[in-house]
This record gives sequence, structure tokens and C-alpha cells, in this order.
Amino acid sequence: MAEVIRITDPADPRLDDFRDLTTADRRPDRPGGKGLVIAEGVVVVRRLLASPYPVRSLLGVQRRIAELDTEVDSSVPAYVTSADVMAEVVGFHLNRGVLAVADRAQPWSLDDLTGARRLLVLEGVGDHENLGALFRNAAALGVDGVILGPGCSDPLYRRSVRVSMGHVLAVPFTTAAEWPGALEFLQSKGFQVLALTPRADAVPLNEVKATGPVAIMLGSEGPGLTDVAINAADHAVCIPMAGGVDSLNVATAGAVAVYALGTG
Amino acid sequence: MAEVIRITDPADPRLDDFRDLTTADRRPDRPGGKGLVIAEGVVVVRRLLASPYPVRSLLGVQRRIAELDTEVDSSVPAYVTSADVMAEVVGFHLNRGVLAVADRAQPWSLDDLTGARRLLVLEGVGDHENLGALFRNAAALGVDGVILGPGCSDPLYRRSVRVSMGHVLAVPFTTAAEWPGALEFLQSKGFQVLALTPRADAVPLNEVKATGPVAIMLGSEGPGLTDVAINAADHAVCIPMAGGVDSLNVATAGAVAVYALGTG
Repeated sequence: MAEVIRITDPADPRLDDFRDLTTADRRPDRPGGKGLVIAEGVVVVRRLLASPYPVRSLLGVQRRIAELDTEVDSSVPAYVTSADVMAEVVGFHLNRGVLAVADRAQPWSLDDLTGARRLLVLEGVGDHENLGALFRNAAALGVDGVILGPGCSDPLYRRSVRVSMGHVLAVPFTTAAEWPGALEFLQSKGFQVLALTPRADAVPLNEVKATGPVAIMLGSEGPGLTDVAINAADHAVCIPMAGGVDSLNVATAGAVAVYALGTG
Repeated sequence: MAEVIRITDPADPRLDDFRDLTTADRRPDRPGGKGLVIAEGVVVVRRLLASPYPVRSLLGVQRRIAELDTEVDSSVPAYVTSADVMAEVVGFHLNRGVLAVADRAQPWSLDDLTGARRLLVLEGVGDHENLGALFRNAAALGVDGVILGPGCSDPLYRRSVRVSMGHVLAVPFTTAAEWPGALEFLQSKGFQVLALTPRADAVPLNEVKATGPVAIMLGSEGPGLTDVAINAADHAVCIPMAGGVDSLNVATAGAVAVYALGTG
């Protein structure tokens, strides 16, 4: 049971974690300058509570806090207030009625992910919504982890968390410190690294045999993967496309690729 | 070559088709009360010009109109103006620099689609972005047509056209007048009708044999397909999901299903 605390004053300093959320991800006072992890709505807050991220507090209207109460540890304060006070604190009207904030968890390392059967490796995926959708699809289709190469955004940014439906909080991820060194490292650990690309010489996914661990590499929607990334891969692979249509959205392409390769 | 006409006055009546675009889809003065088909940006305008929809005019800044000039029929006026005048006419700032409007084309009938190998059938897909994404995926993966069942929105709404990257203009679609009569009609024409659903008794897609024409039916993200629709289908099928993750976005699920069934 959460420690439920009623608050009526929007200036109450106990609500500072929730203040001005549109700019909260730029807070320089937080570790790494990246702000807190913010979950919006009962479904996503529930996933945050079940995640390894240490929850600091909840803020919500009575009805929403009551829905979550039994899932919240007694050391975590749950601030109950009105929808109007919430809107004044966060800086915009929030129609889901509940928020939670957490600290970032200890990050995973590349080593932590080497026991995976299926990894996604992303390069240049800067769009927060695409990143969120990629994590949602990864969770749905049984991907064991995600590696963020150069040019990727922070998947714990508020909008990514929301678009992922909170599933980004359940999928281990790490940033590749070396590029394409991280790909060579995966290969040394027995991974087949596949680069998804519309290049003419790419092998259609339905002709690819994937029996061991596989890392599927995806680039951003416009430019796609760099030559550096494609050349470091074991194979360039493609989704067969109908004439004239250039490509799928990166998150959709990722879902199709993961489905096509199966879980080995 | 388009007939290029410079306009400096935002009140010029020749720009009326472009006026107040946020409400334009509710214009009661157009056939069906559904407004015009609006394309935004060079890529989507190009797809509109290549589509069966009769283009009425273009509006853009000099540079964008010049990019499209050779693709525009001489009978179609292309109005050139400044970004500021464009913003005043359409009612918001438009950073793609060019728009085109077209009339709706003669709609397809269910009969027109019976020669297809792969159809999507949608029920209750009211979200314009999901609808746009479904058409984009349909075009990319070789779907021959889309049938809109009860509760679907207008796929030619401006936001759908944009999210589809203009591909909604290339995929034939029709509205099912009878439900589930349209499904029985497809079956009478030799289609296998598959209902995609997370139901426990659904057959995993990778176990489905799809050798003849197939219609894949998808419901909206929350409630999914109705019992009426599922019971009218030949088989209920599912995408195998990892534990605890309820479902993919409907457009992503559609892409995976179409890929999984292949093109027969």
C-alpha cells in the first residue's frame, strides 16, 4: 500500500519532480542531465512499478491512485490532488489522471546482453516515437534486448515511454560505446549480425536461416544504415517490397524482421 | 508543365480550396460532405499527381512548385506565393512548402476488388493515423485493396493521407455496405477470410497455409474484432506474442500478418 498524501497547493515542493514536464527531460540537476523516468496513465505506471526503475513517487487523482494503491510499496508516497492542480504542476492538461516518476536504473552493459537469442541494434534512430514503437514491438515479439548505436535518442524520454506503452521499461538496453566495435563484439560472442536495408543485393528475409543468436540492425527511416554498419554485418537482408514503395516505418520494419526470423 | 500563377493576397478566392485546412474535412459544400483530398509536401503531392484523383490545383512556395512543375498537367493551376501567405490561408504554419487538392475519385465497389490476391478488411479502425499507417504498410507489402467495415474512418482525411505517405492514394478501397455480408461475399468469390485476434484458440500465423486469395481482417487496437466478424471468418489467427504483452499496434499487426501470409 502506498503512503497516500493529499496535496492542495500546486506550489508544494513535494511535487517538484512533476513540475513543467515538457522541459523535465532537460533538467541538468539530475544524474546524466537526462531527467527522471516519467510514466503516464494507469497501464504505464503499472509497468513502471513492475520494472527495475526505483519509483520515487506518484501523483494522481483519487480514483487513479486507488486503482494502483495495492501495487505501490509503502515507502513510496502517492500524492492525491485534483485534475486542476495536476495540470498546473505539470504544465499541461493530462487526461490520464496519474503519473509516476522514477530514477534511472543501473544501465545494462553489452556483456549483460550476450545471453540473448534475439537483439535489435539501432543506428541513427533519433525519433522518440519510432524508438518507443520499436521497444513496444520488441517486447511483443520476444526480443531480449536493444543496443543503441550512434545517433539514437534516449529511449527513456517521456514520449518514448508513452509510445512504447511502458514496454521500454521491461526491455534491457545499452548504448554501444564503440561502433562498429559493438557489432564485432556480438559476432565474437556467436551472434549472426543482420543489417536490414533496401539495397538491391540484400537477401530477402524469407530466405534467411536464423538458427542461433541473431542481432537485427535497423537504421533510421530516411538515410537507413551507414555503410560502416552494413559492411560490419554478416549479411544484408531486406523485406520484399511491392514496386514503387520505398520502405516501411522503422518500427514496423523491425516488427516484420523479428517475426520473419522467429525465435530460433 | 503547370500553369504557374503568382498570388500575393491571402484573400484571393482562387485559394479557397486551401483555406482553414484544420476544418476543411468538414466542408458541407463538397460531394459527400467530406471535403477535398489534400496532399502535403513534395513526396505526397507527387503521389497524388500519379493517382486517379483529379487534381484541382497546387499551392506552394516557388522552390517546391518548381520541383513538381513538369509532373503537373497544363490544365492545373499552380499558385506560387510566400510561406507567410500560405500560413495565413491554411491557418497554420506548414513546413513542407507545398499542397495540392483533388476531388474524390469514383469509389471502387466490392466487386472491383474480387480479383485481388490479398485484401485487408478493417473493422472499427477509427483512428486516422492507424488508418494511414495501415495503407502505407498495405502498399509496401503488396496488398491489392482494403475493405472498410463498420466503425472505420475516412482514409482520405488529411492526417491519414499524410501518415500513409500518400500511399492511400494508390491502394483501392471500398466501404462494406453489409456486415458481415461483405465477408460472405468474399468467401463466395473464393477468398479465405482470416480474423486476426489474440483469442486463445486462434491459430498462430506461421501455421496457416495461404495458397489462394486471402482477406485478412483486423479490428481496432483496444476491443479488437467483434464476435460477429470473427464468427463469419474461416479461421481465427494470431501473431505469437511474448508473455505479458497484449498486442501490437493495429497497423504493425497488419504488416506482420501480410508478411507472414506471403503473396501466395
